Amino acid sequence: MAQIKYEDLIKLIEQILEKGYGYSKDEAHITAWVLAEADARNIPSHGASRLDFYRKNLQGGFAKPGSMPKIVWETPCSLVIDGQDNVGCFVADWSVKKLIEKVKNIGSAYCAVRNSNHFGIAGLWAEEIAKNDMLGMAFTNTRACAIATNGKMRVLGTNPIAVAIPEKDGKQFLLDMATTTVAHGKVEVYDRRKKPMPLGWAVDENGKGTEDATAFEKLFYGNPLYGGHLFLGGEGEESGGHKGYGLGLLVELLCSGLSLGISSFNTFQKGQGSGITHFFAAFKLDLFGNPQEVKEHIGEILQDIRKGEKAEGQNRIYTHGEKEAESRAKSIKEGVYIDEPTWKLLESLKAEFKI
Amino acid sequence: MAQIKYEDLIKLIEQILEKGYGYSKDEAHITAWVLAEADARNIPSHGASRLDFYRKNLQGGFAKPGSMPKIVWETPCSLVIDGQDNVGCFVADWSVKKLIEKVKNIGSAYCAVRNSNHFGIAGLWAEEIAKNDMLGMAFTNTRACAIATNGKMRVLGTNPIAVAIPEKDGKQFLLDMATTTVAHGKVEVYDRRKKPMPLGWAVDENGKGTEDATAFEKLFYGNPLYGGHLFLGGEGEESGGHKGYGLGLLVELLCSGLSLGISSFNTFQKGQGSGITHFFAAFKLDLFGNPQEVKEHIGEILQDIRKGEKAEGQNRIYTHGEKEAESRAKSIKEGVYIDEPTWKLLESLKAEFKI
Repeated sequence: MAQIKYEDLIKLIEQILEKGYGYSKDEAHITAWVLAEADARNIPSHGASRLDFYRKNLQGGFAKPGSMPKIVWETPCSLVIDGQDNVGCFVADWSVKKLIEKVKNIGSAYCAVRNSNHFGIAGLWAEEIAKNDMLGMAFTNTRACAIATNGKMRVLGTNPIAVAIPEKDGKQFLLDMATTTVAHGKVEVYDRRKKPMPLGWAVDENGKGTEDATAFEKLFYGNPLYGGHLFLGGEGEESGGHKGYGLGLLVELLCSGLSLGISSFNTFQKGQGSGITHFFAAFKLDLFGNPQEVKEHIGEILQDIRKGEKAEGQNRIYTHGEKEAESRAKSIKEGVYIDEPTWKLLESLKAEFKI
Repeated sequence: MAQIKYEDLIKLIEQILEKGYGYSKDEAHITAWVLAEADARNIPSHGASRLDFYRKNLQGGFAKPGSMPKIVWETPCSLVIDGQDNVGCFVADWSVKKLIEKVKNIGSAYCAVRNSNHFGIAGLWAEEIAKNDMLGMAFTNTRACAIATNGKMRVLGTNPIAVAIPEKDGKQFLLDMATTTVAHGKVEVYDRRKKPMPLGWAVDENGKGTEDATAFEKLFYGNPLYGGHLFLGGEGEESGGHKGYGLGLLVELLCSGLSLGISSFNTFQKGQGSGITHFFAAFKLDLFGNPQEVKEHIGEILQDIRKGEKAEGQNRIYTHGEKEAESRAKSIKEGVYIDEPTWKLLESLKAEFKI
């Protein structure tokens, strides 16, 4: 574990991206901010550790810094944006700013984005929208890693859903969730510890539920098509796996469907950009009444939930976004904790690029 | 099992509602159509069997046929409607029609509804919107029956999410799902068979996961506050229960939050209407391109998923809405199948009201 000041972490990542990866100043700044925000919120899977993945995207020709996103379809309440394969955080920031302008004018708008790349934590974009007394939503597809109910091929991404709703006092309800049961990083932990993982996380090459984390790891990286993650609710229909699959598929249709882009199954083809697609939605709270009154009512509902009686052995009921906001406040005050492998990655990139 | 022609089922329910329950002609017609549609789609939990629940809502003073919904807040792209405690199917129909008119004018709009009642299958309202080359969404809260992660009190409803997206050839992707793991009817089946139900469906009065369907049934109807359904993903966070809870809470904030209405926890209080709230959203497909092209692209993505290789022992991958559409087509052709208890209920209502 190392610790670094929030501002210093942003600066360090910026320098790596600008000097080492060839990002423009703007591209580097936005990407560094997004990654540092994930680490500050204690979501290390989406923080500085992603520098490795972002570099591979450059080397594979999937991400092309320097290109400019362009609007390919526009109405007063909608935008379709072609990211031109630029880095995802930059494309998302560019798109969300344009969306917010539309919403300020007309009250409600949507933005579908094609030919982008990994845009960091989905919740950050929903939150940026919600800072404007708006409800914000962000969705993205990803590389295919998950199976449809009754299938055995990896056909859909982790396809996260993020929704931010302003509460009073500057707080936000912030739901940010992969529609798969777990992220792949959780399987890796069980593999390292040589322990069986819970059923409902993944299926093998025959589409059968598996607890063997080590075999699944091998399959996931060795076999290009078969075996993959399960969606929320697990295998089959008994515990609602078809519902989680439905949510993942819904995200796919919003992102790659409405942007007329590439679906998860066809992303990351050699010789092309990754083809990642996003979808953003926003509307003003004053569509429903006095915004202050709406925010207070939202806050009261959340407060009622939080103060409900706790299950045996539990001492707190969280509403979504609280854990991350508390981690962030601590990180800003005390510094951001970075795990050992990520710190080594940062050190080696610093050395390589003479920073 | 009895069988009845689709049109005759609508007519029979209409007569019961008009002659027996005191619904107006319009209220009876819309409600009968919604219930018959559920039975025709093989969703009997939301079909004619609900006549019993709808009657209790009348007797308890929770539903008041004859009152007129009114618009309490309006912008060019939004509506807040007070259902004035009228029956939910009528309020939903009235609201959705107004929403569709707004969307035709401006491209995208939202509608929050307070003081309504049970509106039948959520998917039907999303589908009605989607018939207009729009994407349609419908959400509702319900009587409190589900717990928050780490809690033991029933604080949220089954809070369904429904989204309909037009495909080519008049077909629709139609996701319609309670955000709880299962509907209560599934617990009843295990209780009747005296079999343990799967973990991840419900918790006992201490907030601990339970497999005892019989004890849970007793608790659910006997104890007003403690023990309840789990959301998709089950207990705790290991298999994503906090995500399902987040979706349920999101639905609550959209429905009771944005309508400035009553939350699930406070519905069905003696001396008041039930206080059920809904939220509808709609936008035109031409916000994103030529609607025909968008629909074809949506259809291609769905087709890719359906034709994926099947898991061992499975012979079909469904996309959402297919099963219900196929059941409906069969019912229209052959007649609607009605289970024995529901048929007896219909017969007894016919006798009582001399139909």
